[in-house]
Amino acid sequence: MHSSFMFHLPTKVFFGNGKIEELKNLPFEVKRAFIVTDKGVLNAGLIDGITQQLIAAGISYEIYSDVEPDPSVETVDKAAMAFHKADCDLIISIGGGSPIDTAKGVRAVASNGGSIRDYAGNNMVKKAADIPFVAIPTTSGTGSEVTIFAVFSDWNENRKVTVVSPHLSPDISIVDPMLTITAPPSITAAAGFDAFAHAAETFVSRAAQPASDALALSAMKTVYDYLRRAVFEGHDVEARTKMAEASLLAGMAFNQSYLGLAHAIGSAISGHAHVSHGVSIGLLLPSVMEYNLVSRIDKYQQIGNILFDTRNLSKRETAEKVVAEVRQLRDDLLLPRRLKDVQVKEEQLKGIADDSIKSGMWKFNPREASVEDIQQLLKQIF
Amino acid sequence: MHSSFMFHLPTKVFFGNGKIEELKNLPFEVKRAFIVTDKGVLNAGLIDGITQQLIAAGISYEIYSDVEPDPSVETVDKAAMAFHKADCDLIISIGGGSPIDTAKGVRAVASNGGSIRDYAGNNMVKKAADIPFVAIPTTSGTGSEVTIFAVFSDWNENRKVTVVSPHLSPDISIVDPMLTITAPPSITAAAGFDAFAHAAETFVSRAAQPASDALALSAMKTVYDYLRRAVFEGHDVEARTKMAEASLLAGMAFNQSYLGLAHAIGSAISGHAHVSHGVSIGLLLPSVMEYNLVSRIDKYQQIGNILFDTRNLSKRETAEKVVAEVRQLRDDLLLPRRLKDVQVKEEQLKGIADDSIKSGMWKFNPREASVEDIQQLLKQIF
Repeated sequence: MHSSFMFHLPTKVFFGNGKIEELKNLPFEVKRAFIVTDKGVLNAGLIDGITQQLIAAGISYEIYSDVEPDPSVETVDKAAMAFHKADCDLIISIGGGSPIDTAKGVRAVASNGGSIRDYAGNNMVKKAADIPFVAIPTTSGTGSEVTIFAVFSDWNENRKVTVVSPHLSPDISIVDPMLTITAPPSITAAAGFDAFAHAAETFVSRAAQPASDALALSAMKTVYDYLRRAVFEGHDVEARTKMAEASLLAGMAFNQSYLGLAHAIGSAISGHAHVSHGVSIGLLLPSVMEYNLVSRIDKYQQIGNILFDTRNLSKRETAEKVVAEVRQLRDDLLLPRRLKDVQVKEEQLKGIADDSIKSGMWKFNPREASVEDIQQLLKQIF
Repeated sequence: MHSSFMFHLPTKVFFGNGKIEELKNLPFEVKRAFIVTDKGVLNAGLIDGITQQLIAAGISYEIYSDVEPDPSVETVDKAAMAFHKADCDLIISIGGGSPIDTAKGVRAVASNGGSIRDYAGNNMVKKAADIPFVAIPTTSGTGSEVTIFAVFSDWNENRKVTVVSPHLSPDISIVDPMLTITAPPSITAAAGFDAFAHAAETFVSRAAQPASDALALSAMKTVYDYLRRAVFEGHDVEARTKMAEASLLAGMAFNQSYLGLAHAIGSAISGHAHVSHGVSIGLLLPSVMEYNLVSRIDKYQQIGNILFDTRNLSKRETAEKVVAEVRQLRDDLLLPRRLKDVQVKEEQLKGIADDSIKSGMWKFNPREASVEDIQQLLKQIF
C-alpha cells in the first residue's frame, strides 16, 4: 500500500429505486437532451421512465441508439456528429458500459473536436466544454457511471482504445437497481463478475490506497454473497440492489487505484477476437489471481477474512482458498472457462500477449509479467 | 441500512509526505492567497512550507492567524472582513478544525455577504463565488478537509452554530501526515478519538449506506490500531500517517451519512461550557454507544469482527465488548471521563439536554432519545 495517493470522485451519485426522478431536478439550465443508448435497452422499454421525467422537466430530447456491444471508435465519432446535428445541450446515457462509454466519448469529441482516436491514452481530453452529462446504468458491472475511463474497439488495428481523463467522469449518475431487473442471466453474470474483478484487481494494485481498499473489500463481499442470486433469480430485488451497490463501490475504488493483469490481457483478447469484456475477464481472473498470489499474500488473507470462515486456515491456505472460491464463483455463473470455447485461436495467443503489456493497466499489476509469463498463462486457460 | 442514498465528495484530495508541493500546481489562476491559521500553527513554523511553495508559484499572500479554538461567529465575520481588505483571490487554511472551519465560513460570507450567522442550518449558503479554497489539516481528527460542515461558537446564546452546505467543501485538500508530527499528546488524543467517533456514529446512523460503511469500518480499525502509538510516541511516522488516513476516511464517511447522539450532545456541551469538541466527544461516545447498542447489535458485531478476535463470543458479547474497548481506548488516551472534571456544572445538564435535541445530528441517531433520556445519560457521566 502506498502512503501517498490521490482521491477524486467528482460525480454526484443518486442511488435507489425511483431515483430516476432526479432527472426532474437537474442543476443545469438545459433545453434538449441527447440520449445515448442501445437497441436492447430501447426494446426493454427502459427509456420510457427517462423521457417521462424529461418531458415533465420541459426538456426535449433526441434518442441515439446505434451503439453496439464493445463499441467501436467509428461509433463514437458518428454519435458525436449526431450530437452536433441534434443541437442538444445535455448528454444522458442509459445502458451497460457500451452506451455509457460511448457517451463519454461523445462529450470528449464534442468538446475538443476531431475523433475519439485523438484522445487515446492518459489525460489527452482537455475539457468537457460545459456539456453536462448524466449516466444511468442498466447493468451492474462496469462502474462506468463513476469512472474516468472509456474503452472502445479499433477493428482496423485489432486493439482496444482506452481513454482516461477526469473530463470523462459523469457529472451525475443515477443508479436505480430496478433498471437492472430485466438484464438476462448471461449479461448479469459477466457484468457482475467484472465488478468483482474491478475490486479484486484494484485491491492488490500497485496504486492501492486505504479508501479504495475499503470500498473494494466491501464490493467483493457483496458480489460473492449476492451475484449467484441475481443471476439465477433475476427478479430478486435485494440481490439486484446489492449488485448495483457492489458495482458502484468497485467503480469508485478502481477509479482511484486502477486495475491489473486480468484487465490488461482482457483488453488484448477483446481486441483480437470478438469476445465480450466480461467473458474475457471471467476467463482470466482466477488464473491471474493465482499468478499474483505470491506477491500479495497478506491482502489475499484480508479478502479471505471477509469472504469465508478462515479460523482453521493458515495464511497460505486462506490465500489459496480465495483463488479457488473466485474460480468456483465463475464456474457457478456458467461463464466460459477456456479460450478455445469462445473461438480464440491458438495462433492469436502470441499477439494477445504482445498487446497485453501495452495496456495502461499492465504496470499496476502487483507481480511483474513479461510477454512470456502472459503467454504461459494464456496457454493454461486455452 | 438504507437502499437509497446519495454520494458526493467533490474535494480532490492529495495525501502523502511532501504533498504540500501541490500548492505549486494549483489548477486555478490566482494571484494572492488569504492564509487562515492560528497562533499554535504559526509558532510551530508549519506555515513556512506553504509560503515557500506560494512564492515559488508567484502567488503573494496575507496571513490571518487570529483564530481561537472552537472559533466564534465573530471570528469568522472579522476574518471575512480581513479577506476583503487583503484583496485575495484564494483561501488556504492550515490547522486543525478551527482554522479550516473558519476558512469555510470566510468563503461563505465573502461569497454571499452578511454574517456567518445568516447561514446557520442546512443549505443556506447559496454559492462559493469562484473563490478557490485549499484545506491543509495539521491534526488528524475533524475530517473538516473533506466535509460540508462547519461549526462555530455563539457565546451570546451559549450554543453552537452549525453550517451545512456543499459550498463549504474545499476544492482541494492536502493531507501531509508530517504536518501532524508536532501536535501534542492531548490534542492528538482528542482529535484522534473524535475521528473514531465520526466513523462509529456514521456507521450506525439512520443515513448509513454501503460506501460510508466501508470507509467508516476501515477508519475505526485504523484508529483502534494506531491512535495509542500516535499519542504516546508523537514521532512515530507510521502511526501519524495511519491516523491521517483514518481521519480522512472517517471524514469521507460522515460527510455522506452524518453523525449521531454523541455529536448532538457534544455540541450542546461545548455551547454551554468551555469544553473542547474532542474532549466532549471523549466523555460521551462510550455511553452513547452503550445506549445505541440495542438498536444496532448486528452492526456492533461487524465492528467487533474487524477490531478483535470474536471467535468465542456471542453476538451480544461482541457488541458489549465493542463498547468496553471504546471506553478502554478513551481511558488509555487519558481523556477526561466525567463532566465535573471539565467544569461542567450539574445545573447545566437540563439546558444541555434541551439543546441536544435541537442539533441537526440528533435525528440521525439510530435509537430515539428524548430530553429525559439525554438527561439520564448525562447524569451517568457527570
